[in-house]
Amino acid sequence: MSSSVKRFLIGRPLKSTEIGEQKLNKLKALAILSSDALSSVAYGPEQILLVLVTVSAVAFWYSIPIAIGVIFLLAALMLSYRQIIYAYPHGGGAYVVSKENLGENPGLIAGGSLLVDYILTVAVSVSAGTDAITSAFPALHYHNVIIACLLVVFITILNLRGITESATILAYPVYLFVLALVILLVVGIYNIATGEVSPDLHAPIGTPVGGVTLFLLLRAFASGCSALTGVEAISNAIPNFKDPAPKNAAKTLLAMGGLLAILFSGIVFLAYYYGIAPKAEETVVSQIASETFGRNYVYFFIQGTTALILVLAANTGYSAFPLLAFNLAKDKYIARMFTIRGDRLGYSNGIIFLGVTSILLIIAFKGQTEQLIPLYAVGVFIPFTLSQTGMLVKWIREKPKGWIMKLSINFTGAFISFTVMMIFFITKFGQVWAVLIFLPLIVFGFHQIKNHYESVGDQLRVTTCEPAIKVKGNVIIVPVAGITHVVENSMNYAKSLNPDQIIAVYVAFEREDEKLFAEKWKKWQPDVRLVTLHSYYRSIIQPLTKFIDTVEHKASESGYRVTVLIPQFIPKKSWHNILHNQSSLLIRAYLLYRRNVIVTTVPYHLKK
Amino acid sequence: MSSSVKRFLIGRPLKSTEIGEQKLNKLKALAILSSDALSSVAYGPEQILLVLVTVSAVAFWYSIPIAIGVIFLLAALMLSYRQIIYAYPHGGGAYVVSKENLGENPGLIAGGSLLVDYILTVAVSVSAGTDAITSAFPALHYHNVIIACLLVVFITILNLRGITESATILAYPVYLFVLALVILLVVGIYNIATGEVSPDLHAPIGTPVGGVTLFLLLRAFASGCSALTGVEAISNAIPNFKDPAPKNAAKTLLAMGGLLAILFSGIVFLAYYYGIAPKAEETVVSQIASETFGRNYVYFFIQGTTALILVLAANTGYSAFPLLAFNLAKDKYIARMFTIRGDRLGYSNGIIFLGVTSILLIIAFKGQTEQLIPLYAVGVFIPFTLSQTGMLVKWIREKPKGWIMKLSINFTGAFISFTVMMIFFITKFGQVWAVLIFLPLIVFGFHQIKNHYESVGDQLRVTTCEPAIKVKGNVIIVPVAGITHVVENSMNYAKSLNPDQIIAVYVAFEREDEKLFAEKWKKWQPDVRLVTLHSYYRSIIQPLTKFIDTVEHKASESGYRVTVLIPQFIPKKSWHNILHNQSSLLIRAYLLYRRNVIVTTVPYHLKK
Repeated sequence: MSSSVKRFLIGRPLKSTEIGEQKLNKLKALAILSSDALSSVAYGPEQILLVLVTVSAVAFWYSIPIAIGVIFLLAALMLSYRQIIYAYPHGGGAYVVSKENLGENPGLIAGGSLLVDYILTVAVSVSAGTDAITSAFPALHYHNVIIACLLVVFITILNLRGITESATILAYPVYLFVLALVILLVVGIYNIATGEVSPDLHAPIGTPVGGVTLFLLLRAFASGCSALTGVEAISNAIPNFKDPAPKNAAKTLLAMGGLLAILFSGIVFLAYYYGIAPKAEETVVSQIASETFGRNYVYFFIQGTTALILVLAANTGYSAFPLLAFNLAKDKYIARMFTIRGDRLGYSNGIIFLGVTSILLIIAFKGQTEQLIPLYAVGVFIPFTLSQTGMLVKWIREKPKGWIMKLSINFTGAFISFTVMMIFFITKFGQVWAVLIFLPLIVFGFHQIKNHYESVGDQLRVTTCEPAIKVKGNVIIVPVAGITHVVENSMNYAKSLNPDQIIAVYVAFEREDEKLFAEKWKKWQPDVRLVTLHSYYRSIIQPLTKFIDTVEHKASESGYRVTVLIPQFIPKKSWHNILHNQSSLLIRAYLLYRRNVIVTTVPYHLKK
Repeated sequence: MSSSVKRFLIGRPLKSTEIGEQKLNKLKALAILSSDALSSVAYGPEQILLVLVTVSAVAFWYSIPIAIGVIFLLAALMLSYRQIIYAYPHGGGAYVVSKENLGENPGLIAGGSLLVDYILTVAVSVSAGTDAITSAFPALHYHNVIIACLLVVFITILNLRGITESATILAYPVYLFVLALVILLVVGIYNIATGEVSPDLHAPIGTPVGGVTLFLLLRAFASGCSALTGVEAISNAIPNFKDPAPKNAAKTLLAMGGLLAILFSGIVFLAYYYGIAPKAEETVVSQIASETFGRNYVYFFIQGTTALILVLAANTGYSAFPLLAFNLAKDKYIARMFTIRGDRLGYSNGIIFLGVTSILLIIAFKGQTEQLIPLYAVGVFIPFTLSQTGMLVKWIREKPKGWIMKLSINFTGAFISFTVMMIFFITKFGQVWAVLIFLPLIVFGFHQIKNHYESVGDQLRVTTCEPAIKVKGNVIIVPVAGITHVVENSMNYAKSLNPDQIIAVYVAFEREDEKLFAEKWKKWQPDVRLVTLHSYYRSIIQPLTKFIDTVEHKASESGYRVTVLIPQFIPKKSWHNILHNQSSLLIRAYLLYRRNVIVTTVPYHLKK
């Protein structure tokens, strides 16, 4: 039953050899890897204006130089990541680059930071998208959290179905969003060019404004940089591209950078020219769109695709998180289960883990995840800085052809990223301090896990340790609950193994019962020794384990091993199990983990 | 760790022999068994007025004859239950009485009805109590559901600690409530007697009122009868009394009946004399109290103890449910686990089940369980009717000394209970129809479970079936994941059992790996046959079970048994388990329940 539900939701299992068919072409890759970056166009410009408005509306002209700064940073990041793609064709991303060039801990800081960030990406973007949807249908507003959770579940299932399939479905909304914004920009600029928009709506660039401090401008710049989150996704996901993967990835990266630059600067420019001020109840993009078209169907098309892309931005997290988790798990810093490919060849444990944790975040914050945005932005710029610095070190160490050029590109990237990160810490410390606590904890956890795996490996390796102790003989203990076919079945099996001794153990709750059973047993199985134990506290496990301990202690002295043989009847239908006391289950679990005995279960399958 | 938390919450385990110390004296028994019945005084009179007010305030005088009817019914029930106590000194209650005298199905209807009713008791009374508390502290109102759930958890823990202990704690609030109401009645009646209350506040008894129909009066009577829920609790719980149990129980029953009659008629009389009309925002008891004392400390004392007793009414369910469940489980109609005494000698599974289900009900109804009250009342009068009818049949069959008197008492009880039940069905069908659906379902379930237990018993009994098949030889299959100490340890054990054949099985995901492993194995364990299986879908279980099936099929033909021996390493700390793929756990569970093979786990305990 459960397997056919699974089949319905995620499709038939794929053979390992079918992995080539799951690779992405550039068009699909651009759609699923850039949704996060592109969606930030919907809120990035607004973030800048929100800081400037604290001085006065006249200060809005500063958004133009700030946007130029952001575009400059974007260009530097694009060029740097392009170099990373060629240098690490198997999927680099900040973790691999930092670890190889800067050492273990910087790598783990970058990896841990991104790991958390992708979870935040999903929670934040799905919540934002849900807000956009429920703003349109106020009746749904009360159900925000549940809608957001269902959307996460939907995206999770889509990703479990496999990369290409989700790419096919997700490509439409991404390209529709790009189309919508391009229409907006073209019509907007055409209106301006033809003089239909009054040039008096905004203060000219360079107008002096009182009260503008460097701190404020840096804060506005840092806020605008939140539009750059998500640009590293492509460099993480190179293995998902069709061959030649690095070349295709690099082209996709440039396409994404170009689109992002055009849309971002266009929106900033229109907002400035129209003299738009941020409002609590209406987004900047919505204001520009209604200014340009009025509230007609084009307006609703723009608003609809914007809501959609905010939800789909989550998908970038789904593309990048499992690959990053795979890399960390391969290096033994997190649980090994993240290296396993699921039925549809995706790293399904990573996908499910991401889904579950982001749902938990959404529930914990009751769907109001905006407070997490600064945390999320700073969590991006830490790995940005580390990976660019790593590339710097690489060029200095290797000195390939043209390394001075490469060095200067990465140096610029590293310097700006570091600056932005510091600006975040200085101007928004109250919102980002948590990073300084949880990042060290995560890195500590990584080390703990690695230590454990290495210690286990050492203990299991046949060559390095003394050989396992030889078994000189066997004692079999059979806990019996009555004189039944189940017990008979187990007894026959125990005898067939020819052990040195078989002991049947009966736990009685009352004295009379104890005697009565011993007599019955003598008649039934005269050749098997029976030990009866009295239980004062109505527990079977307590007296039983005490007895087993005694036997085990004696046996181990002479090199004998103790096997506890548990008779168990298996009902025909699985729901019947709740009708039977699961003592055998408890005994089994308890003995296996706490005691040094072998546990054997002899099933007796009921026919009715 | 978890065991010390348990110790802290419910106390040290008690020996089976300490059961005598857990018995109740009359004073404590009255407190914990009558809280449900007594608490209904807080809402019973109001229920009558709520029906009468639909005609006019003049009709309020009808509450006096209606109350007399209720008291008459109460007296009949008390006398009948007194007879039941003596006739069934081991704890009768409706289930036992109906089953013995009327047959299986009437017994099951009574039992199923009460089982559900006790759950409703807990949910309804805790919700009502919570409402009373949060009305006093409006800031808490938003958290109603969570407060109600915490109260249920608290009462559950109290009951898990044991009967006497919970009785000691719960006796104070019950007696304080009785004291509070007695003060109210005495002062109220004194005021009336001294002429301080104007006699013009109410219409005199007998005033003609237009629009009063028989249907309406019956409806008011049925509503008033909801005050009688809980009176059967004592007859269910006789085994909890100190010896001589039946005598003590009968005395306690009469004390409870007397208290209930005095308090109920007193409140109805005061409400009538003061001319009090039911209000949405203030209870009738609160109105009487503030009329009598003003809003001083006596008023708040009355209100406080009322809120408390509403919560504690739940405790009656906790006293009666586990004993009823025990009786049903002993007769194999529900799962056997309800017969087991916990650490503190209470039937802890019943207590926990009651707690969990009522919490689920509270959550499902978002703490608004008032809608369940009619359902709950009708669920009481079904077993009332059945048990009284059962006694009727008993007297007719046995004809003991003075049987005519006994017969007429139970006949009266049966007749009135049946009438009230029919009134409920006729006047409130819209609210109680659900009983007609779920009761048959429950009874059907009871039969299904009994059938299962009997079929299992038949199949296990050694005398009735053919003997278990003898084992002619053994084949041991060892799934191996590598060349490690864990595998070595298992191999040594397998060899020590001297089976007819040992087969090591390796599941490979890649072709090269398959060959490589086979070569390594040949060098390491040349005397053990290795089978390598290729997995196309990255699953270990699928190819493994297919192989095991083939071997099992062949082996069973010649009377051989197949043992699957699973090497497992046990980490030092249990949290480490999440870091390792639990394939062995999965394989074990799968094989045990689906296949006819013996499963043996050979643990290898890691030292670090």
